[in-house]
Amino acid sequence: VTAAVIGLGLIGGSIARDLAALGHRVLATDTDAHAVANARREGVVAAELSEGREGSAEGPAGAGDAGAVPVTQELAGADVVILAVPVDRAPSLLRQLGPELRAVPLVMDTGSTKAAALRAASEAGLTHNFVGAHPLTGDHRSGWAASGRDLFLRQRVYLCPADPDSRAAALAMTFWEMLGAQVEIMDAAAHDRLLAWTSHLPQLTATALGLTLAQAGHAHGSLGRGGADMTRLAGSDADMWTAIALQNRDEIALAVSRLQNRLDALRAALEAGDSEMLRTNFDAARRWHRDDGADPSS
Amino acid sequence: VTAAVIGLGLIGGSIARDLAALGHRVLATDTDAHAVANARREGVVAAELSEGREGSAEGPAGAGDAGAVPVTQELAGADVVILAVPVDRAPSLLRQLGPELRAVPLVMDTGSTKAAALRAASEAGLTHNFVGAHPLTGDHRSGWAASGRDLFLRQRVYLCPADPDSRAAALAMTFWEMLGAQVEIMDAAAHDRLLAWTSHLPQLTATALGLTLAQAGHAHGSLGRGGADMTRLAGSDADMWTAIALQNRDEIALAVSRLQNRLDALRAALEAGDSEMLRTNFDAARRWHRDDGADPSS
Repeated sequence: VTAAVIGLGLIGGSIARDLAALGHRVLATDTDAHAVANARREGVVAAELSEGREGSAEGPAGAGDAGAVPVTQELAGADVVILAVPVDRAPSLLRQLGPELRAVPLVMDTGSTKAAALRAASEAGLTHNFVGAHPLTGDHRSGWAASGRDLFLRQRVYLCPADPDSRAAALAMTFWEMLGAQVEIMDAAAHDRLLAWTSHLPQLTATALGLTLAQAGHAHGSLGRGGADMTRLAGSDADMWTAIALQNRDEIALAVSRLQNRLDALRAALEAGDSEMLRTNFDAARRWHRDDGADPSS
Repeated sequence: VTAAVIGLGLIGGSIARDLAALGHRVLATDTDAHAVANARREGVVAAELSEGREGSAEGPAGAGDAGAVPVTQELAGADVVILAVPVDRAPSLLRQLGPELRAVPLVMDTGSTKAAALRAASEAGLTHNFVGAHPLTGDHRSGWAASGRDLFLRQRVYLCPADPDSRAAALAMTFWEMLGAQVEIMDAAAHDRLLAWTSHLPQLTATALGLTLAQAGHAHGSLGRGGADMTRLAGSDADMWTAIALQNRDEIALAVSRLQNRLDALRAALEAGDSEMLRTNFDAARRWHRDDGADPSS
């Protein structure tokens, strides 16, 4: 199998490592030339997609970038193409590369929002072979240096196939199971609504908590284990999360407003010295936390 | 050395385990008879403080409890007495046991708030030998089953001596350094203000986030690693945190209101689709997170 991986960050780099270890041929490109050079030196990437710098999105971050697109001949000959790029970049790549990607058996992105990628794939004529994929393995660390073997082992991967009955949908399941992941098929809109609560809200909460502590003059190093865990995600990549937040902003704003309601209630209980209300809240949260055995630290 | 440990939970149990392993004689009591029995069977506790069930605080949780006080003769003969009990229980124990504790070289509590314990110690005539201690090793798990060896190794312990120049203050430093902890001396009021931000606010944030997800119908098991970390503290003991929240409610309420301000700003940016504002927030949080090398997961 020949895989073309566009973007050698935490997700793309880890996919490339696993595929290479399984004996597959990995072609890759990244906006960061060092990532590609390191991946080749480590024997993970067999060849760089020629003229391979991926173009960045418009805007200040990509202003110095030539905007070249990975050369398409190698893409068309690949068995699987993986767009492991920020969620604001995947739709434009799909539109640009659409014609060359049509012959590829399986095309996937890996971002934390799925509706925009699915729309772009449909517009690019990739309904038969596109599967939106979202491995639930995000981390505050990013880049090739953060990637590693077995990142997906026993981890959940949401799959949103453009056509659930396509051969590509079946291939995508096989692909992720090969990497040890647990696959869950989901509609893209439902995925984005779900993740607004289970992933994007926790990220924004960590960001807000970090900013609150920063403003009050408390360094990250002054925290204990609990506080450190609660602000780990504050270290996440700003551009990546800006793009996710914008694509899913309605549902995330709703989730944030619900969190604010709960904080209002807790603050009112504090100000009133209402021990029963405080206990009721702590207790309900504890019961929710305990109601499944999924916490590996328990 | 003979140590009397009142409360064999996460903190008291771990102290008892370390002391026993270092060859010291540990007397102990707990409201949970099973904890004492297990600690004796495991060879950690040499003897139970006789008539030893510790009385619970007033209120529904302790209603079925006889309210007996640990017998005082053994306390008076101990080299160190450790009150590893909820923060609403330590002040009343100090007042009850004051006369017997006066002859003990070192008396400490271990709770997450310090001003109330220091006040009670002063009222009980224990200024010469009382040191408020707060090992920053809280966890969402509690009880004897959660305790273990080396919990304090390389962990921070805040010490608030009633008299910084007392022999007890020096003994307390030696005590915690013997357990491998890193000691930091601090005024009790300053401690409580600091912890409102670095510990109590993260706890209430986790509680509020857990309640938000519960209300929206999302199980804890549906979270990825990030979301799971952000809600781990939601599993913390409700009675323990109700007591902490009440004792430190003014400063915690202030901290919560500041968090709400940051969430307001993030939600406004989401609703306006303001990518620059979002990026500025994510970026500032990331710089704060990165500004020290204390994150062991980086």
